[in-house]
Amino acid sequence: MTRLEQQGAAAKEASRILATAGTAKKNAALEAIAKILAERQAEWLEANALDIAAAKENGMRPAMLDRLTLTPDRVQGIVDAVRQVIALPDPIGRVTKMETRPNGLIIGRRSVPLGVIAIIFEARPNVTVDAAALCLKSGNVCILRGGKEAFRSNIAVTKLMREALSSVGLPEDCISLVQDTSHETANELMHLDKYVDVLIPRGGAGLIRTVAKESSVPVIRTGEGVCHIYIDSEADLDMGANVLYNAKCSRPSVCNAVECVLIAEDVLEPFLKQAVPLLDEKNVELRCDGKSLDILGSRAVPAMESDWDAEYDDYILAVRTVKDVHEAIDFINRHSTGHSESIITKNYFTAQHFLDAVDAAAVYVNASTRFTDGGEFGLGAEIGISTQKMHARGPMGLEELTSSKYIIYGEGQVR
Amino acid sequence: MTRLEQQGAAAKEASRILATAGTAKKNAALEAIAKILAERQAEWLEANALDIAAAKENGMRPAMLDRLTLTPDRVQGIVDAVRQVIALPDPIGRVTKMETRPNGLIIGRRSVPLGVIAIIFEARPNVTVDAAALCLKSGNVCILRGGKEAFRSNIAVTKLMREALSSVGLPEDCISLVQDTSHETANELMHLDKYVDVLIPRGGAGLIRTVAKESSVPVIRTGEGVCHIYIDSEADLDMGANVLYNAKCSRPSVCNAVECVLIAEDVLEPFLKQAVPLLDEKNVELRCDGKSLDILGSRAVPAMESDWDAEYDDYILAVRTVKDVHEAIDFINRHSTGHSESIITKNYFTAQHFLDAVDAAAVYVNASTRFTDGGEFGLGAEIGISTQKMHARGPMGLEELTSSKYIIYGEGQVR
Repeated sequence: MTRLEQQGAAAKEASRILATAGTAKKNAALEAIAKILAERQAEWLEANALDIAAAKENGMRPAMLDRLTLTPDRVQGIVDAVRQVIALPDPIGRVTKMETRPNGLIIGRRSVPLGVIAIIFEARPNVTVDAAALCLKSGNVCILRGGKEAFRSNIAVTKLMREALSSVGLPEDCISLVQDTSHETANELMHLDKYVDVLIPRGGAGLIRTVAKESSVPVIRTGEGVCHIYIDSEADLDMGANVLYNAKCSRPSVCNAVECVLIAEDVLEPFLKQAVPLLDEKNVELRCDGKSLDILGSRAVPAMESDWDAEYDDYILAVRTVKDVHEAIDFINRHSTGHSESIITKNYFTAQHFLDAVDAAAVYVNASTRFTDGGEFGLGAEIGISTQKMHARGPMGLEELTSSKYIIYGEGQVR
Repeated sequence: MTRLEQQGAAAKEASRILATAGTAKKNAALEAIAKILAERQAEWLEANALDIAAAKENGMRPAMLDRLTLTPDRVQGIVDAVRQVIALPDPIGRVTKMETRPNGLIIGRRSVPLGVIAIIFEARPNVTVDAAALCLKSGNVCILRGGKEAFRSNIAVTKLMREALSSVGLPEDCISLVQDTSHETANELMHLDKYVDVLIPRGGAGLIRTVAKESSVPVIRTGEGVCHIYIDSEADLDMGANVLYNAKCSRPSVCNAVECVLIAEDVLEPFLKQAVPLLDEKNVELRCDGKSLDILGSRAVPAMESDWDAEYDDYILAVRTVKDVHEAIDFINRHSTGHSESIITKNYFTAQHFLDAVDAAAVYVNASTRFTDGGEFGLGAEIGISTQKMHARGPMGLEELTSSKYIIYGEGQVR
């Protein structure tokens, strides 16, 4: 057995215990985690300082450095998030669809944990705790594989969380960290079918595509966001400009930010006149098709073919003219990643048609794509935004981390 | 573009239309399929006769030949099954969890089709129509890849179904057959991520494992059934013997048949005395651990290690002695495929503990495992029994062939 196989086997063993742990026990473990992270944060912060120093030496970009950095305030935020998970209802053990069949069998469907969830993520220390807390509350054991830049931080925080588990009598192996950050080990994890039930990659598009392609463990794809806003010929242009500005500029690095605006040709010029001055505030680079370029001139640059599938995660916006809602829908269904899509229109029928025909996790009428988020949707915390159609689609909260089993009460029935 | 890529692209196009087709249109298509299969069954039967002749020439076993053979009666059964699918409620377009958020956004979750479903199956002509009908009713386009032994039959029946689709104004490409049965093409289908949303292998364990391992398209594993019955020390032994006989002998070739009986040592001898005479009726071969072999002597053979993980699909049963329910649960969780597991006991607490701790799609108390079936569970027809934890677990009816999308009605909200 390799080291990772041993870790997987231990996780599977732990999952048998955690799957039948009650709500009180799981909440006690979460409270113990919150407490130990608050009380012994120095251990975590010290390890993080070493990660930061190494990252600086390796010339990490300031934006990435900021993501990697822990502060007492940030730790407090993470601790608060754990306590919010405690407050959420337990998604395990709900029995739905229970009925008595004509032969007297009583058949119900009960929600159960998925089992062992592996999470591959990049250099954000808060993800380590967020993911572990959501898995724990939903009765799932997690195997965490973080980025190498945060390795020392992750070792420190995992050690604390495992101590907390022990202190309430749950197996330490309910939470574990992959003990090296090599590609070989990541690859081995993707093929640990025997012990891992689900794999969730959290990170850039490249990571996610690689994992989805390579993994023989079932994968949930999350967070790939090439999102569009379509400005209809019957749009309130003022609203459209505001929504576009918000969807692009409020946080361009997140997956629910808009990457491409589609504009009905009837309103192309007036819309651009309203929207561009707002986008100017953040110096948003505009990559335009021919018609919009004709209007914007030197304010814009010509789009290349690759711009129609680009996830910029930056102050860049692709701009394209379409004839009508049908062309917009057709374009979106060909180029979107199925994350979040929005139409701005006053026309009832156009709005309903867009809702029906666009194939995405979240389809909006007259609102910013930025709302696609577990908190905003009322799910509480989320482990990611699923952009696939199997198992879960859209923000994944605790319920989306469950499976089910049928329970059947009989009196000796045979068939 | 390869021929299969063209087929995939056409399927994806068709799925955009089928996804928004109403219930009346889909039911009209199903009725047209039922009608054309009844009226022009000669075309299908003639093609099947050619398949049968070729199979005989190749020395196909009688049991397999029987599976492959169509008769007017069997066609009628298949037509009736299509009409039963018409009678089922449409699983698409249900809106659940709709609520108004504090910011005024109205957010709901609507059931939508998965999109394009590829189904890889072996030589059973009825599967072609059953699968196509369930996919059609749930708004999914299907790409069917049948076994080479039924290739002529499948070409004939697919042609008829495509004509039926055309006759009601739906794209023919809502149903299509992969036009060769080579392994290369099957492999290409497993990597057609761009067009195929889900792949469902239906067939033997070897097929399913290969597909799950190779495919980069998300897979739903179905029908792997190493099922157990545990006879508790507090069992009604009479009931236990009846249930065991039924679960093993009523149809040994199906996935919900029992493969291994676990017997509490306190009741080992009396239980075997009651059960074996029943099993004798079908000459069930018993492969035994040491303790049970001591009792049964020459009636049985010693089990090998591989017997504890075997799916016999035949009149063979593994027999093993366990200390108590805890040892039984532990053994089951290590050796079962997570399909169907049953306990026979009169003890309330033992029953509840078994239901809690056994990790399987269906867990029974005092009933035969043979009930794990879409019809028996009240789901109507089924496309298979999922033995995985993601997306769907247990019998997969129409609802399990759906995904969801969030629909959001706004008034210009930004974040």
